[in-house]
Amino acid sequence: MKAAVIGAGSWGTAISQILADNGAEVRLWVRRQKLAERIKSTRENSEYLPGIRIPDEIIITCELEEALDGAEFVVMAVPSQAMRKIAGEAGRYIKNQSIVINAAKGIEVGTLLRMSQVIKEELPKGLEVEIAVISGPSHAEEVARRLPTAVVAAAEKKDVAEKVQDFFMNSYFRVYTNLDIVGVEMGGALKNIIAICAGIAEGLGFGDNTRAALITRGIMEIIRLGVKMGGQPSTFFGLSGVGDVIVTCNSMFSRNRRAGIDIGRGKSVKEVMTSTNMVIEGIYTTKAAYDLARKYGIEMPITEKAYEVLYEGKNPVDAVKELMSRRGKHEMEELINKDWL
Amino acid sequence: MKAAVIGAGSWGTAISQILADNGAEVRLWVRRQKLAERIKSTRENSEYLPGIRIPDEIIITCELEEALDGAEFVVMAVPSQAMRKIAGEAGRYIKNQSIVINAAKGIEVGTLLRMSQVIKEELPKGLEVEIAVISGPSHAEEVARRLPTAVVAAAEKKDVAEKVQDFFMNSYFRVYTNLDIVGVEMGGALKNIIAICAGIAEGLGFGDNTRAALITRGIMEIIRLGVKMGGQPSTFFGLSGVGDVIVTCNSMFSRNRRAGIDIGRGKSVKEVMTSTNMVIEGIYTTKAAYDLARKYGIEMPITEKAYEVLYEGKNPVDAVKELMSRRGKHEMEELINKDWL
Repeated sequence: MKAAVIGAGSWGTAISQILADNGAEVRLWVRRQKLAERIKSTRENSEYLPGIRIPDEIIITCELEEALDGAEFVVMAVPSQAMRKIAGEAGRYIKNQSIVINAAKGIEVGTLLRMSQVIKEELPKGLEVEIAVISGPSHAEEVARRLPTAVVAAAEKKDVAEKVQDFFMNSYFRVYTNLDIVGVEMGGALKNIIAICAGIAEGLGFGDNTRAALITRGIMEIIRLGVKMGGQPSTFFGLSGVGDVIVTCNSMFSRNRRAGIDIGRGKSVKEVMTSTNMVIEGIYTTKAAYDLARKYGIEMPITEKAYEVLYEGKNPVDAVKELMSRRGKHEMEELINKDWL
Repeated sequence: MKAAVIGAGSWGTAISQILADNGAEVRLWVRRQKLAERIKSTRENSEYLPGIRIPDEIIITCELEEALDGAEFVVMAVPSQAMRKIAGEAGRYIKNQSIVINAAKGIEVGTLLRMSQVIKEELPKGLEVEIAVISGPSHAEEVARRLPTAVVAAAEKKDVAEKVQDFFMNSYFRVYTNLDIVGVEMGGALKNIIAICAGIAEGLGFGDNTRAALITRGIMEIIRLGVKMGGQPSTFFGLSGVGDVIVTCNSMFSRNRRAGIDIGRGKSVKEVMTSTNMVIEGIYTTKAAYDLARKYGIEMPITEKAYEVLYEGKNPVDAVKELMSRRGKHEMEELINKDWL
């Protein structure tokens, strides 16, 4: 099997390793020539996945044409806000009958589209491919160390989801199928908002109780939005929802959580964004989700406060206080929608 | 308002403080005379909640009669396996029309009953009281430091739940109501099994991905059992379910998680149980849940492995390997029950 992995961030690099471990012929596309050369000569992606030896079989290239030549599986692992551009460029070389798998977690600012929607829009008319999504609690740093991980492969058609499952599954990477692309993508994207909020609470010196409350209530508002957009409630309770929220909010590998901690400790959003070469997806997702909530008329108090902190300079302490002092409520009154429960 | 808090472990002590902060006249019942005297003279519960000054207004007593005299709210905060005995003794002094609130998280081994059921069984026939439950992600150590916390007050009647909500709610302790006692109690009890498993995975050196996978799949099996027993699915996604799972699996304040870590690192279950003066509820709950799963014919692979590790000497490494190597599945096939989703 031939696979192209487009994007050599930490996740793209780790995915390459999974697929190579599974016996696929893998080409990893690296955007920057310099990084590509360094990876080729050192067999290490020192910038995004330091300390991990990249299997020799993986072909490193900066040429989309070379990466995609003959690929039956194409994994798109680029930052969300760059997806449209790169999918457009890659589209020319993607062959018919291949499966294009989104591995990015975000929503496009402005269009408010999910990544698989963006990819679809950018692929050439007439090209016949299947679209799938891989998502779940999977820090690249741990996958690369081959620590047991479980994720979801989503596609509209069962056989496509199962092909992706078979392609990725191995002894350390367990894959469950799911037919709800909308729910899987929305969960994966929106959890980064909660991670930033959980980080902020932590940075402010609040404890585990506060974080758990924020996370739980955050999951509820994610579900409200995600279901409104067509996702299945059950999906949000699975690996690509709750599971990903848990890992993102509690692991130091999460840049979204770390960004929140820094903001809670007093750093400006700008400082935080320029302090890393990695993209903090949650900052963009907060904007997109804030817009989506208004568009669909969904109450998302935590996202709203996150937006105010990130984009309007609100003091995080005030934001937490305001969340805590909302009037007492029946727990499920905001969540329950008789149509789906 | 007069309140009796029965049990001066960390949680009972912290609850006393909440209620005293809210202006209630609080009596805290301490089982052991020696500890009671120490708390009286030092105003600190050095054994279970060190470093926290207990408000002067709280009356400390070893006499159930004194503690319960005239109490309109009775909070039962004793270890689950001691609940029956203490509820039986306390019942004689509980007055009519009071609200008895279970604050313990467990299932009685043998009878497989929830705590509020055990309390009901032990109260004198003819006594007219309302039963409620308080549960959620609330480490006592943080509540005592007045860090923002959000929990659930559950009762069958809305007005009872709201009375408990009003009684507990303040600026650092946010209370949501819920009418699903079964779901709230089952979530609170069963999460300790997952915490032990998450701890074991951690102790074995697995990473955040593994833990997130275990926790997420664990939540699913909790829901399967809890729903079968009459709980509402939505409850398990709230503070007393997912929320409590999150805090218990990720905080070092969790003795269940810490116990798991020690077991993962090679300590025997016996060593772990005798190394602390606190009760590790999850060890009992694992046994009860294992029995419940068999009784109701529910598939609970994680609970089963936990049982084998805790009670049958299975090597934890083998347990994790066995969980990871189950055949590939559709994510929701085990969870989805068309009746409730």
